[in-house]
Amino acid sequence: MPQKPLGLAVKAVIVDDAGRSLLIRRSRANRNFVGQWEWPGGKSDPGEAFDVALKREVLEESGLQVEITGVAGALGYEMPAVHVVLLCLEARVFGGNLRLSEEHDEFAWVPFGEYPRMALVDNIRAFMLEYAAREGTKK
Amino acid sequence: MPQKPLGLAVKAVIVDDAGRSLLIRRSRANRNFVGQWEWPGGKSDPGEAFDVALKREVLEESGLQVEITGVAGALGYEMPAVHVVLLCLEARVFGGNLRLSEEHDEFAWVPFGEYPRMALVDNIRAFMLEYAAREGTKK
Repeated sequence: MPQKPLGLAVKAVIVDDAGRSLLIRRSRANRNFVGQWEWPGGKSDPGEAFDVALKREVLEESGLQVEITGVAGALGYEMPAVHVVLLCLEARVFGGNLRLSEEHDEFAWVPFGEYPRMALVDNIRAFMLEYAAREGTKK
Repeated sequence: MPQKPLGLAVKAVIVDDAGRSLLIRRSRANRNFVGQWEWPGGKSDPGEAFDVALKREVLEESGLQVEITGVAGALGYEMPAVHVVLLCLEARVFGGNLRLSEEHDEFAWVPFGEYPRMALVDNIRAFMLEYAAREGTKK
């Protein structure tokens, strides 16, 4: 990690009233992880606050307006030119209409108990499963 | 969380070659958690990147120059006027000399196995213990 620049990315675990969370599927417009499911989110811009970045990325990728309700956790992973620090935040919808960008071709509201059977993005799959297992047993 | 503004804070788990991590004890110059042990760190300034904030805060509080080596995790907690999102990063020393600011009055290099017997800061004690338990069994 030391040699590469660090980048901050954010993702939203958006949960509805039924306890299901929003997953979106990466389309062929992406270079990697095509066909795999992920939480909406993306890179923060230089100088951009993490919560502003989260709302912007979620709106771009899902059409939804969200507010942050908690912290899911954080992890790091390597990309070719950068080491990414990924901050995952819990959020809920307060406006907007679900509409995907070209980066995704499908969405699903998924109970945490069903995460193990989903093709989750390889790079944070372990984290998503761990979080889902923790949340799924909370009730 | 929705009503209050969000703030980003960062803390460093600084580990030495013997696998011990740096804890510093909060002095009476603080309004809360006096006498409790914590990882160095603090609030990021508006527009300041998280890694810049971490290096600045660690230098201010410990006199040490560190580089980030990994991600320990993240959690949220409430303060009177703000909801804090705390990003905890793993780091190692590459320069500087250990010297505390007036905010702390003692330091210790502590093996993760000894965390349970330390008076850790109340607000993130559970997280620190969980992390230490995970790290302590890695070898």
